[in-house]
Amino acid sequence: MRIVSLAGGIGGARFLRGLLSAAPDSEITVIGNTGDDITLYGLQICPDLDTVMYTLGGGIDEEQGWGRQKESHVVKEELAAYGMEPQWFGLGDRDIATHIVRTQMLAAGYPLSAVTEALCARWQPGVRLIPMSDDRTETHVVVSDERGRRAIHFQEWWVRLRASVPAEQIILVGADAARPAPGVLQAIADADVVILPPSNPVVSIGTILQIKGVREALEPKTVVGVSPIVGGAPVRGMADACLRAVGVESSAQAVLELYGSPLIDGWLVAEEDAGVRLDGVRVEARPLIMYDAESAAAIARAALTLARDLAASRNTGPQSAFRMGDAG
Amino acid sequence: MRIVSLAGGIGGARFLRGLLSAAPDSEITVIGNTGDDITLYGLQICPDLDTVMYTLGGGIDEEQGWGRQKESHVVKEELAAYGMEPQWFGLGDRDIATHIVRTQMLAAGYPLSAVTEALCARWQPGVRLIPMSDDRTETHVVVSDERGRRAIHFQEWWVRLRASVPAEQIILVGADAARPAPGVLQAIADADVVILPPSNPVVSIGTILQIKGVREALEPKTVVGVSPIVGGAPVRGMADACLRAVGVESSAQAVLELYGSPLIDGWLVAEEDAGVRLDGVRVEARPLIMYDAESAAAIARAALTLARDLAASRNTGPQSAFRMGDAG
Repeated sequence: MRIVSLAGGIGGARFLRGLLSAAPDSEITVIGNTGDDITLYGLQICPDLDTVMYTLGGGIDEEQGWGRQKESHVVKEELAAYGMEPQWFGLGDRDIATHIVRTQMLAAGYPLSAVTEALCARWQPGVRLIPMSDDRTETHVVVSDERGRRAIHFQEWWVRLRASVPAEQIILVGADAARPAPGVLQAIADADVVILPPSNPVVSIGTILQIKGVREALEPKTVVGVSPIVGGAPVRGMADACLRAVGVESSAQAVLELYGSPLIDGWLVAEEDAGVRLDGVRVEARPLIMYDAESAAAIARAALTLARDLAASRNTGPQSAFRMGDAG
Repeated sequence: MRIVSLAGGIGGARFLRGLLSAAPDSEITVIGNTGDDITLYGLQICPDLDTVMYTLGGGIDEEQGWGRQKESHVVKEELAAYGMEPQWFGLGDRDIATHIVRTQMLAAGYPLSAVTEALCARWQPGVRLIPMSDDRTETHVVVSDERGRRAIHFQEWWVRLRASVPAEQIILVGADAARPAPGVLQAIADADVVILPPSNPVVSIGTILQIKGVREALEPKTVVGVSPIVGGAPVRGMADACLRAVGVESSAQAVLELYGSPLIDGWLVAEEDAGVRLDGVRVEARPLIMYDAESAAAIARAALTLARDLAASRNTGPQSAFRMGDAG
């Protein structure tokens, strides 16, 4: 089976690990968010791509969810000793090597998709990881503080301010000009099913959906999403702060409506959100907390089963709907 | 007293530490060699400037003579895990931070002299350290091996090959176009005396002397050199391999002739080289091995005393030559 998944950082990466163990013989293509990318100290940093790569490649700091295991921070301390700003971004020594390789290859003219493939040659994540675009985009957040109303880089809002200042607007700078990276639209066209992990619906999956042609390519496919909101609160991270910025409440219902139909065909919600519904969408309730690898795999299995059922019912027409109901 | 010194790496830096302790109230300007500079992994590395800065600033690995003390090599190991070449250059984590700051500032448009000043703001080396030029130059070495006759970067010859392949020619690429960095010629013009440490006479001091106008600015000054060769062998490093490339034998006499008069006014040699002489040059024999900080300071004191005597005799004319002889 050919599966496409869109993914942000920690939540997406953990879900993908579950998906890999739930569908070990599938061909999985992951379209990674690059809106969080940032250039710091002259290094091109792709936090979400790296989190997916390290998590699936066995190099992630499990506790933290991002960055490398057994990490040290000598370079960061030395940069601080020189007074280099910013100092709020956590940059480990092992991680820096990844950024050096990436920055070098980009400077040599390789597109980000080729660079990502080269980095993955070391990590062997077990999926094909493609950045959403080779064109530079950057998520900026409009905030108001003592310096007035201004747009800051998403990482500054997320990491330095811990999303404590309200986001008045979230803008993907460069979205208009960004084309999908080579392979993105083809992978979607070839996919049997598409799975949206419980990644941030605004700054992760929402960002990928803004890339020209991606949403349109997804709409005719069988797409199953896993709600990132359980009982009114994000499973992890600060998705609620991002949802507030786009005027969407933090609920499994509201996120489903944000994605909308015809994009979404199936929607997994937690058992306490069983009442969620939207025309054209089959909603199923399942335990959605990823405590560990096994619970992540169980959620992935549920999403896959729902997606397979929906795809089969679509292929065989309405008369199979009854059988699908039995299988669900 | 205003002192100018030209310097390469380890030997020069250790001598300069002696000079600082021998003349604590002097204003010392060091013109640093940048011919050894190399760009690796997108980072601008200035080995000689950094060795001087770290040595005088108390950050050097004393045992090794270069690089930072308490250094780790996590980034280098990770780059190797990605298969990044070259892997023969020793790049420590602490050191990398220096190169990141430098590369960033250069990319932002600051000249190397301004970058060096900014880095020294942290290290407080006690001297004013100026690169010989803000213009990029690179020392290349012509070698013949199984791949034919070709020019390789000095660092590849020095570090990777340990100078084991004969250097047929040593070329400072960019020398014709390189102008002295701001402050270089003025510092020389203002100097009471100029001291040449026992740095490599070909690829360190010889390189600085190739920068347009530097030799001409030095000739009218009182210049005292410390022989880098003791009893036919380099005090440290592989200066003999470089001298061979320019057809000069490894002796205190031959190096003095290489520098020549009128550049050199005074020449310190080791006691076993007491027979060295050249018209117009006062030669003095002293213990020249730098075992430690104190022996380096003693050599620096001897060089300074000789320089002061020569400068005084020059200022007061021939009638004071007799008094100078007494003082020597």
